[in-house]
Amino acid sequence: MKALTQGATDLADRLGLDGPTLLVDRRRARRNLDRMVETARRHGLRLRPHFKTHQSRVIGRWFAEVGIDGITVSSLEMARAFARDGWTDITVAFPFNPRETDAAAALADAIDLGLLVSDPMQVEILAAAGIECGVWVKIDTGYGRAGVRWDADRDIAALAGAIREAAELEFRGILTHAGHSYHAGGVEAIRAVHARALDRMRQARSAAGGCPVSIGDTPGCSVADDFTGVDEIRPGNFIYYDLMQLRAGVCGETDIAAGVLCPVVEVRASDGVLVLCGGAVHLSKEFLPDGRGGRIYGQAARVEADGFGRLHPEAALVSLSQEHGLLKVGPEVCGATRPGDMVLILPVHSCLAANLHRHTDPVII
Amino acid sequence: MKALTQGATDLADRLGLDGPTLLVDRRRARRNLDRMVETARRHGLRLRPHFKTHQSRVIGRWFAEVGIDGITVSSLEMARAFARDGWTDITVAFPFNPRETDAAAALADAIDLGLLVSDPMQVEILAAAGIECGVWVKIDTGYGRAGVRWDADRDIAALAGAIREAAELEFRGILTHAGHSYHAGGVEAIRAVHARALDRMRQARSAAGGCPVSIGDTPGCSVADDFTGVDEIRPGNFIYYDLMQLRAGVCGETDIAAGVLCPVVEVRASDGVLVLCGGAVHLSKEFLPDGRGGRIYGQAARVEADGFGRLHPEAALVSLSQEHGLLKVGPEVCGATRPGDMVLILPVHSCLAANLHRHTDPVII
Repeated sequence: MKALTQGATDLADRLGLDGPTLLVDRRRARRNLDRMVETARRHGLRLRPHFKTHQSRVIGRWFAEVGIDGITVSSLEMARAFARDGWTDITVAFPFNPRETDAAAALADAIDLGLLVSDPMQVEILAAAGIECGVWVKIDTGYGRAGVRWDADRDIAALAGAIREAAELEFRGILTHAGHSYHAGGVEAIRAVHARALDRMRQARSAAGGCPVSIGDTPGCSVADDFTGVDEIRPGNFIYYDLMQLRAGVCGETDIAAGVLCPVVEVRASDGVLVLCGGAVHLSKEFLPDGRGGRIYGQAARVEADGFGRLHPEAALVSLSQEHGLLKVGPEVCGATRPGDMVLILPVHSCLAANLHRHTDPVII
Repeated sequence: MKALTQGATDLADRLGLDGPTLLVDRRRARRNLDRMVETARRHGLRLRPHFKTHQSRVIGRWFAEVGIDGITVSSLEMARAFARDGWTDITVAFPFNPRETDAAAALADAIDLGLLVSDPMQVEILAAAGIECGVWVKIDTGYGRAGVRWDADRDIAALAGAIREAAELEFRGILTHAGHSYHAGGVEAIRAVHARALDRMRQARSAAGGCPVSIGDTPGCSVADDFTGVDEIRPGNFIYYDLMQLRAGVCGETDIAAGVLCPVVEVRASDGVLVLCGGAVHLSKEFLPDGRGGRIYGQAARVEADGFGRLHPEAALVSLSQEHGLLKVGPEVCGATRPGDMVLILPVHSCLAANLHRHTDPVII
């Protein structure tokens, strides 16, 4: 049996990679992208992908190559970064922070900027500043995080009316992120969350006096068949997927397209554990329950000549501190591993892992 | 009653802070530093503080001002960064990664470098490369993360012997991080972990043929009275402390010296919740159980004219996604808060929060 670390170590040797490194499987990521483009085409939806997952100019260009011309980000800072790379149509899908009025005005001078509001005060500030931008009303369709409740008819109508009345503002429509789909537990439950969100968005659209509808979550956009009444989708995570999406049944294991290559720094043969330089600062502390009261912070996958290989079913990252990760692999793998070998860890939540590596370009294989 | 957000908002207005910002209370941090210096002096210990907590050149200089001339870091990259700022005596308290042999050699040419080993292969590689550096043997005193078990006499003796025999290597001693003190649960339990670690280090020191002993954890170094047999301490977290240390009884609430200033972007009055731009990418996903099956990702504290104020006992960050944080505050605070107000959030784990802000200097008040 080829050692778990063999392919990853060979790759690191070939590319001169010494420390924890974000690795992207190009074939998998582009296939994920092609599928989402096809979903959008089939249902007549505009695909405005969320770039907070990868935060990478290089990966961003793959989207441009398949015809994407509008994107979503989660901060003005991220919008500026992608504007510098030539993106001219960007929605900041995060409630507008009144402290950033000048920064928003400057960016709106340069690109077609979309902003989110849920409070009349935000509209007043944008209107008073005379910013020429698009404005979406954020709707809470049950996630309970942010936005106006879908059934708060009068609030929705008032916000839509105020935006429409403001001379420089363009009312773009209503927008939701049904993020509770992440924890729905299985494909059917995700479809149910999605269907309910769509119902609620139709109700909110009536309150707003008719307008475009934008929805956002990767689970729903990946598994739903029905997008009736939806104009735009904004998934982000799908470009990489991760263990959370795998467990939810949203993707297969061979769809996971990002991982962190980690050096082994100690072999604890007596415990069947590899100590990795791969901790919270490389992967984040997001975890999945292991079903036995423990936690999984990541899982090892093989690296093949042409990209990522299969998950190693037994090799779970069971403990994580700031820089250390403990990978439970059993005695056989320990016997074939030495400090300095490399192992590919697939993350629980790829967005958070990629964010920790955002200051360097990912290594694409 | 002055609103929870008043002081933080005034501060942000005065300093022009618009987004999530790492804030450090100078008076608290320097008092924490003075106390640890005094602990070291009283017990005749060398204090080699861990800089991974703050990762800041500015904060680092405070340590130089009180006479610290040797430091601890967790990676060669961090060592290089502080070497560029003039530090010349640095221990990398993380198991040596054989892939970084050339990088270690280059740094050892420039500064007095200390490295950690737990495997004979690491010693062989360092010896073969002819690197002139100090080498510590990492001992596991019960944490179960990394290092040679304290009672593996022959392994310890063999490692110490191999280092002593290598012409360019200097055997510095044995080193441990009793990190299980973080989860011991209370001061007495921490003291018990500390006492046991010291016993075990004395046993390991005998196996090594006598040598200096270095220990590392903030909880033990903060609350222990006995350091018999210890030569060096390497705490890091104590400069800021955090909610985890507060809950463990290691610090008081007015010792917590780092927080993240977060903008309010939505007021959910009906739920008594403030939506913050303050999520996993600003604070990390480290949490404390709230005792009722829920989680606490941070807690709000007031900002006074002269620094951080008291914790707001009711205002807990109860939910966290990538950029959003939900701060449960109750209806009264909601009534006095508007989007654009600011709130100071004390983190559960200051090392992870500070790491997320390491690319910008903290704002010191």
